[in-house]
Amino acid sequence: MAKKAAKRLLRALAGDAMARPPWWLMRQAGRYLPEYRALRARAGSFVEFCLSPALAAEATVQPVRRFGMDAGILFADILLVARALGQPLDYTEDGPQLAPLDPASGLRSLNGAGVAALAPVYETVRLARAELPADVALIGFAGAPWTVATYMVEGGASRDFRRVKGWAYRDPAGFTALIDLLVDATVGYLAEQIAAGADAVQLFDSWAGVLPDCEFTRWVIKPTREIAQRLKRRFPTVPIIGFPRGAGFLYERYAAESGVDALGLDTTVPLAVARERLQSRLPVQGNLDPVALVVGGRALDEAVAAIRDGLGGGGFVFNLGHGVLPQTPPENIAALARLLAR
Amino acid sequence: MAKKAAKRLLRALAGDAMARPPWWLMRQAGRYLPEYRALRARAGSFVEFCLSPALAAEATVQPVRRFGMDAGILFADILLVARALGQPLDYTEDGPQLAPLDPASGLRSLNGAGVAALAPVYETVRLARAELPADVALIGFAGAPWTVATYMVEGGASRDFRRVKGWAYRDPAGFTALIDLLVDATVGYLAEQIAAGADAVQLFDSWAGVLPDCEFTRWVIKPTREIAQRLKRRFPTVPIIGFPRGAGFLYERYAAESGVDALGLDTTVPLAVARERLQSRLPVQGNLDPVALVVGGRALDEAVAAIRDGLGGGGFVFNLGHGVLPQTPPENIAALARLLAR
Repeated sequence: MAKKAAKRLLRALAGDAMARPPWWLMRQAGRYLPEYRALRARAGSFVEFCLSPALAAEATVQPVRRFGMDAGILFADILLVARALGQPLDYTEDGPQLAPLDPASGLRSLNGAGVAALAPVYETVRLARAELPADVALIGFAGAPWTVATYMVEGGASRDFRRVKGWAYRDPAGFTALIDLLVDATVGYLAEQIAAGADAVQLFDSWAGVLPDCEFTRWVIKPTREIAQRLKRRFPTVPIIGFPRGAGFLYERYAAESGVDALGLDTTVPLAVARERLQSRLPVQGNLDPVALVVGGRALDEAVAAIRDGLGGGGFVFNLGHGVLPQTPPENIAALARLLAR
Repeated sequence: MAKKAAKRLLRALAGDAMARPPWWLMRQAGRYLPEYRALRARAGSFVEFCLSPALAAEATVQPVRRFGMDAGILFADILLVARALGQPLDYTEDGPQLAPLDPASGLRSLNGAGVAALAPVYETVRLARAELPADVALIGFAGAPWTVATYMVEGGASRDFRRVKGWAYRDPAGFTALIDLLVDATVGYLAEQIAAGADAVQLFDSWAGVLPDCEFTRWVIKPTREIAQRLKRRFPTVPIIGFPRGAGFLYERYAAESGVDALGLDTTVPLAVARERLQSRLPVQGNLDPVALVVGGRALDEAVAAIRDGLGGGGFVFNLGHGVLPQTPPENIAALARLLAR
């Protein structure tokens, strides 16, 4: 415990206001880094890359080595769980491609081995944890059930979420079976990551922001709360960061009811609102626009200063509001590191 | 004036709570309707269709004729303004395609005739107004400057808005010149629509929800306020509906500062929040999930009832939170019309 408390990330996630906020960046291991591209070229498919512990652990550590973030985040993908459940998964230029689940046949096509099949990911966690400095946290993660379900039912990215919402609205009982399956898998997956050495975990609900009111409670808040409660029983001191991207006004309900320990803020959450209505309840993480990091210079300086001024008085982890863009110049991240060290 | 006040839509937009809310649907003229598809087949390109007054007026009137909405909305496209300013525009399966503006050369490539070139649209308004029953309102519209600028700079739809935000963050003075040009064009365009017979206008800010805090004020609220003020000077009694889709918490600032008369709500705005923090200030319009209209049946009944219960006590126009999806069965819209007549 003494060792854990020394990690700056964990202090902030416990609610300490820190003069220099701890920081990491969503998708900090990625294509913008030349050493990542070199590593990526050594693997076959993207899925093989994610499931090669030595390579994935190296990808996890690379940005921390170069920029000195306060946390590394496991290099993996939220859809590995769908694959472990038995859904074929491929990545193309257009993003992830899955054979979409058919609501009419429900879960029958899902007869994979489950998250036991993700043992290589747990090995990645062990290797990365061993490689990272003791004062740097390692963050594990999973996609939240709603978001993973959207990909499983749509077969990839979607504009209108017609298939997945259609299933949820037309046949809530059948759709609940899918969400329940994902809750179980996510609990098992994150528990193994924690057992392997993850110091904190983040639940990415990237498509939380497409649901109306009641449906948000049903498909975002309820499964998140169940995951949080079940993990808390086994790992009461490991913080869970929830990131319901795009939730808008529903961030308030999520903060109050989801059971997570900290809240990832997307780019559009206004700072005064975040401070008064969200950070008053939970530590927050965010929310620089990734485009400001591409642009750099004065725009970056001003945006970083505004976020530190707005949120630095409470539990706060500096991050982006969305993932690092591939076009980001690495020198802008070095500049960000210097800004945050002041 | 007496005639105007008789239109149910205008009563609701003036703040009257009505036992049966007036209604219309965004993209109510569209591919889901067989008579629209037949009409569309008679035009060449989509742009030609929009600029053929007889066809566009017929598209405007078709859904009202079939379903009896309380308003027709001009059939046109938000990017006609970009084209009138001199930017080539085409529509493909992937959506609109424009030769993207280059921030380095700024507005130099824009030497079109301006919105005078949109005379066919004004003729569409005249024809549709003459065709619609006197108690049915005709709504004119334009894209808000920020949203039109995103298409002009990205060259089409975007996921990360990297080019347009990059310009705005790196060179706010240069980008302001584009926004100012769009403010002028939008005022001229909407003024001509009103002069031709539009009873109300809507400003579609479809991408309002991708900007952080300060940038939202700068690129969404400020231009909207300028448009509203300039239109109000000439047409003090014509209501302006603002639709800052995806604005999340920033809906509150928009309601307080943008100068619009009514607020279009997207699907994700929670009903209690809408009532307490937004409708308390301005009449609201929305916000059924278009997927509920595709699904129909009990899911539709329940969602409609929840929205009427939540918002029916104040100024309220029933609508979707986004456009009608092409997969919508027309019989579900007939069912909606029956529900709303109760």
